[in-house]
Amino acid sequence: MSKKPSMLIVGAGAIGSFYGAILKKAGCAVSVVVRSDYEAIKEHGIRIESPLGDLSFAPDHVYRSGDMPETYPDFLILCVKVLPGVDRAAMIAPWMGENTRLVLIENGLDIEQELVDAYPYNPLISCLAFAAVSRVDSGIVEHKAFGKLVFGRYPQGIDGGCQILAALFRDGGINVELTERVVGERWRKCLWNTPFNPLSVIANGADTRTLVDTDGGEELMRAMMREVMEVAAADGYPMDESLIDKNIASTRKMPAYKNSMALDYLNGRPIERDAVLGSVVAIAKRHGIAVPHLNTVLVTLKMRAALEGRA
Amino acid sequence: MSKKPSMLIVGAGAIGSFYGAILKKAGCAVSVVVRSDYEAIKEHGIRIESPLGDLSFAPDHVYRSGDMPETYPDFLILCVKVLPGVDRAAMIAPWMGENTRLVLIENGLDIEQELVDAYPYNPLISCLAFAAVSRVDSGIVEHKAFGKLVFGRYPQGIDGGCQILAALFRDGGINVELTERVVGERWRKCLWNTPFNPLSVIANGADTRTLVDTDGGEELMRAMMREVMEVAAADGYPMDESLIDKNIASTRKMPAYKNSMALDYLNGRPIERDAVLGSVVAIAKRHGIAVPHLNTVLVTLKMRAALEGRA
Repeated sequence: MSKKPSMLIVGAGAIGSFYGAILKKAGCAVSVVVRSDYEAIKEHGIRIESPLGDLSFAPDHVYRSGDMPETYPDFLILCVKVLPGVDRAAMIAPWMGENTRLVLIENGLDIEQELVDAYPYNPLISCLAFAAVSRVDSGIVEHKAFGKLVFGRYPQGIDGGCQILAALFRDGGINVELTERVVGERWRKCLWNTPFNPLSVIANGADTRTLVDTDGGEELMRAMMREVMEVAAADGYPMDESLIDKNIASTRKMPAYKNSMALDYLNGRPIERDAVLGSVVAIAKRHGIAVPHLNTVLVTLKMRAALEGRA
Repeated sequence: MSKKPSMLIVGAGAIGSFYGAILKKAGCAVSVVVRSDYEAIKEHGIRIESPLGDLSFAPDHVYRSGDMPETYPDFLILCVKVLPGVDRAAMIAPWMGENTRLVLIENGLDIEQELVDAYPYNPLISCLAFAAVSRVDSGIVEHKAFGKLVFGRYPQGIDGGCQILAALFRDGGINVELTERVVGERWRKCLWNTPFNPLSVIANGADTRTLVDTDGGEELMRAMMREVMEVAAADGYPMDESLIDKNIASTRKMPAYKNSMALDYLNGRPIERDAVLGSVVAIAKRHGIAVPHLNTVLVTLKMRAALEGRA
């Protein structure tokens, strides 16, 4: 067996810790870069309870922001939140070697270009995670369900790096779907996230059932989804209109559920407003498409943030 | 001098207490119906500090909801908030004599018809108050500035009752403007209130300056005002488009200010969402006019209310 690629997870929160553990299970060297959980992870490693079994592991190296690496990783997997004022390109600079492949497991739309601009010669793999994981405490993560990854090379195609990474995640027990058009997959995920996540914040952390059962709620969701679809189509990623019915139906089938943005809001953490919603409104503007429902939610969230002293 | 008409104020909060005091000053007998402030007002009367001088007065009678009156008033002045689940027609039933004129000093649109339906033979005078007054404590009200009333017979015209009432308010020191088309005046007031008041709630009680200075805030205000105008025009009350510029300019000239709905929200009191916003969206629906910005704000407020266990 040839040597497995080395992995560096930047941002070992719930998502980063979980997929790092999967790669560790697949036999890779897995190091992490962490901020607030450094002491805990350095001392006790990362503990993960999962239906897949005990995924706890000790990272090969634990770095803090700005530390210099022992060696450059084969894959740098970026799992930090996409927030205005957080310069992700600068954040990963110390660890980006000439042959390092950059992997994003992050939410939102139009989140890749600033990294392509900063590292034009490093292949970029863009991933969407469908996993119910949450950080319970410093270095302690709970994996509740799901885990599938959908990814491809950005802006399109499937390269050798994608194939290697897919094989490793599958070895670790995760479903992977490779896609030639990953931006289209981002649009499909945003079809749900762009309405539901910001609305849950506007509604002070309401769960999915409350949102959809409010008088006029389902109609508002549908109107926002239609706007997302229209912008996606103008951007070159048309979707089938039946997806709206499917999204509403599956939301009604799920138990009442607080999405991660609602939880971030309730816990006083910054929210990925611009990655998930602001970017869609910006792309709409570029294409001259009116998105009054999305824009109203975006601006009202900004009004509220102004009061809270957030960005 | 002939005997002055008798007045009954139903809902002696800030607005009811203030205009009751003005009528008392004009020489009328003024009684009040109060809920939570009954004991304080029964014992100490109503204390009002005002740039017009000390307007404090002892009401001729202090009633509780459901009490029977000594006599029916000539004018019953209704100053309670317009809230779903509050049956204003039932509330005033004990005091509505055959010749009682009903006067509303209340915010919102389309708030008269249920009272016309309940009391078809009592003339109804619909009033808009432009006054900065606030309730400081039980039976204690502060009048800070302004005080003008705009009113007319509902649905239109100016009758003898309007003339009598106008003369009394003017005697008490208040500017009055009589209007043949009071519903049009309600629309003009809603041009500002319908966007600003609900947005201040969505933004967790933000002041006017924060709302208008937020990135995209002024544009959202303008879009909402354009929708209000379009609905008003379809309803028979066209407005001049320049009013939007004027409203924005005067908002920018005012010091940062929390409107009454923001204060109600911050103090955990119910808000007049439906009178100020829901009614406009309902009228838009009747006329087949799309109001996506207004509707998004309405539904998101309902989503939040669902979580708070409010209506």
